[in-house]
Amino acid sequence: AIRFLSKQRPERVRLLGDMLCREDFDLVLLQEVWSEQDYSDLKVKLGSCYPFSHYFRSGVIGSGLCVFSRFPILDTFLYQYSLNGYPYMLQHGDWFCGKSVGLVIIKISGIIFNVYVTHLHAEYCREKDAYLPHRLVQAWELAQFIRHTSKVADVVLLGGDLNMHPEDVGIRLLRGWTGLRDAFVEATHFEVSGRGRVGSQDTPRAPHLPCHLSQGCEDGCTLVPSNCFTVKSELLPFPLGIRIDYILYKAISNYTVKCEELKTTTGAVPGMDIPFSDHEAVMATLHIQRQGQAMDTTFGTAESALADVVTEARTEVGVGLRVAQRQRYSSGRMALLALLLLLLQAAAALGVLLGLDAGQPFPKLSFCLLAFLATGILLLATGLHLFHTMEVKMLHGTEEQMRMVLRALQERP
Amino acid sequence: AIRFLSKQRPERVRLLGDMLCREDFDLVLLQEVWSEQDYSDLKVKLGSCYPFSHYFRSGVIGSGLCVFSRFPILDTFLYQYSLNGYPYMLQHGDWFCGKSVGLVIIKISGIIFNVYVTHLHAEYCREKDAYLPHRLVQAWELAQFIRHTSKVADVVLLGGDLNMHPEDVGIRLLRGWTGLRDAFVEATHFEVSGRGRVGSQDTPRAPHLPCHLSQGCEDGCTLVPSNCFTVKSELLPFPLGIRIDYILYKAISNYTVKCEELKTTTGAVPGMDIPFSDHEAVMATLHIQRQGQAMDTTFGTAESALADVVTEARTEVGVGLRVAQRQRYSSGRMALLALLLLLLQAAAALGVLLGLDAGQPFPKLSFCLLAFLATGILLLATGLHLFHTMEVKMLHGTEEQMRMVLRALQERP
Repeated sequence: AIRFLSKQRPERVRLLGDMLCREDFDLVLLQEVWSEQDYSDLKVKLGSCYPFSHYFRSGVIGSGLCVFSRFPILDTFLYQYSLNGYPYMLQHGDWFCGKSVGLVIIKISGIIFNVYVTHLHAEYCREKDAYLPHRLVQAWELAQFIRHTSKVADVVLLGGDLNMHPEDVGIRLLRGWTGLRDAFVEATHFEVSGRGRVGSQDTPRAPHLPCHLSQGCEDGCTLVPSNCFTVKSELLPFPLGIRIDYILYKAISNYTVKCEELKTTTGAVPGMDIPFSDHEAVMATLHIQRQGQAMDTTFGTAESALADVVTEARTEVGVGLRVAQRQRYSSGRMALLALLLLLLQAAAALGVLLGLDAGQPFPKLSFCLLAFLATGILLLATGLHLFHTMEVKMLHGTEEQMRMVLRALQERP
Repeated sequence: AIRFLSKQRPERVRLLGDMLCREDFDLVLLQEVWSEQDYSDLKVKLGSCYPFSHYFRSGVIGSGLCVFSRFPILDTFLYQYSLNGYPYMLQHGDWFCGKSVGLVIIKISGIIFNVYVTHLHAEYCREKDAYLPHRLVQAWELAQFIRHTSKVADVVLLGGDLNMHPEDVGIRLLRGWTGLRDAFVEATHFEVSGRGRVGSQDTPRAPHLPCHLSQGCEDGCTLVPSNCFTVKSELLPFPLGIRIDYILYKAISNYTVKCEELKTTTGAVPGMDIPFSDHEAVMATLHIQRQGQAMDTTFGTAESALADVVTEARTEVGVGLRVAQRQRYSSGRMALLALLLLLLQAAAALGVLLGLDAGQPFPKLSFCLLAFLATGILLLATGLHLFHTMEVKMLHGTEEQMRMVLRALQERP
């Protein structure tokens, strides 16, 4: 829902508000609500059914993340990912959003829920994904943030647009390192509707197809060719669509969580010719039960598999590190060359001023344009050099953290 | 310890290494180790007495934070503050460090320690402190980070250069919102030496005075006029110096922590004419004892005082918000004016090209220089506008979080 850019935005935000009011979820996690005005409008509209809400601010545009809840929000916290694309990739724009993970803590019937909502860097080209290292750093930081902040929670929920296919290394890393389970995989029923649900919805960009809210898309896909806002050519290799929006969960203390049913929207809003969003919403009904002992056994039983995933992720981060180091080097060299050119020009100008230069003077206009160009390149290359220096630092730091974790995993009996 | 800039850096890093080896602390938290090479050198030198260590990478220069420990580091995590000065304040340079708080988790005799090391934005002018809102946002994020990540720890330790005087609103906010206690205030003995200690040291910038390692500075000051690296004129209103480096602590579960003794260095290294750093090191001996019930009662007993501090901090953040909004507005207007000028020039140039302009043509060189200037201003003002937009977002977000906390505090019985 980008202001001025996204098609039929006000209409779709209105439809979304209507649907959320009608469906009466317990908890709604939204992504890509870029306009704070849209959030405020939703907040007013949903005031009676979802009295508690929070919008997470970050970056130039905003994180796009917000939460609506039937139950009081006890606390919130935001973690902004250290890497999130490049400011000069204006056509991709991820950098300007300050992509983050938001945490809200809520209590329902005495059970403490740590609820995380996030939106990771988009994948613009699956064959040659230049952003893979950044998305992996984000997945790693997301996992670390969840691990470090959820230790006294009873139940952990994560909902959002992870921009990763179910078997991608990033999501395996996230699941392995946190012990979170995928509601779609665990769901007892898929494509049936129910009560007491958690909804995650990536809001809308640009419309029309038949829809059945009581059914889901095949394979739980959330980016489907039948949605009129999706780019059909990008989905050519995936005729059914792709699943990149998730609801993940785990119980930490003496509780069990089961996903009773999961559903997705399937294109246009009932009775309309546009869908809510370019992504289909994921809706889960979770059954939470108190019991004698914790069920969080996933983590302990799959340590060697986890070590493999961390190794794989570390390799990818290492590849990204090498690329960033090359970019840092070449931008630094470019800045140095521009500086040399400027110094040369300054020397020539000084020579002319002092009357030392006997030869043909350089044409003033070209001389001035060249100085202009050199200054521009110097500023740009210096900026790039600083940015890639930060990128190298963060990739290096993540790689080292992963190495530490691997060592710890290998040392365990 | 800035490479090429700080005076006698290699010598002071060597002296610091010697002292750390000799004193044999349990845990050492260093700030302003800007050069990774210095960290690596220290790591090699301290390998036998402190087998475990971690360096936190962030920003362009690096966070400067590192930890040396006699006990295994189980896990680490870094949180980079969302606001940290301005990239165009090159002479202050804080922005380039990517100021952060680092967390290391260690276990000593079965007791889990969450150890935090941090360095907040410097205060360059106490009378008119333009960075106060940023430092307050950092203090708030530090407190929130500690609260959310330390819930299962037995003991929480925080050491570092907070760049705040003991009664400043930021440190009161931090203490109030986390329940951390100030080792200097709590210390049973001050100016005596002992064993089993935690050291926090802001490493060195530029040298000479008598020193007594077994004694501390008056009032526990860590930035003292007698240190040859400090700027005397800045300390004129404080003849004894100021206390801006801290060791704070609390017990969370069934433990009590007491500060048995605290000491600081007092200028030059014994037998030398230079100190380790421009800041004096703080060294604490903590006594930790298991007991029946948690002692973390500070938080509950002082809620109305906490509400006052949060209100005060929120007011300051609000002042910063208004300034940032003005800066965002004026940089946006400047960018718009530069764009208009460029468009006007383009129209004029097009007029001349098409032969529409009958009058005297504008001199080429001046025309070109003006275009150069306008482009420069456009780029700069756009960059500033984006930066101040982010600043507004984060100040606004913090103000709102504080309002939420205040409401919760007021609603409590």
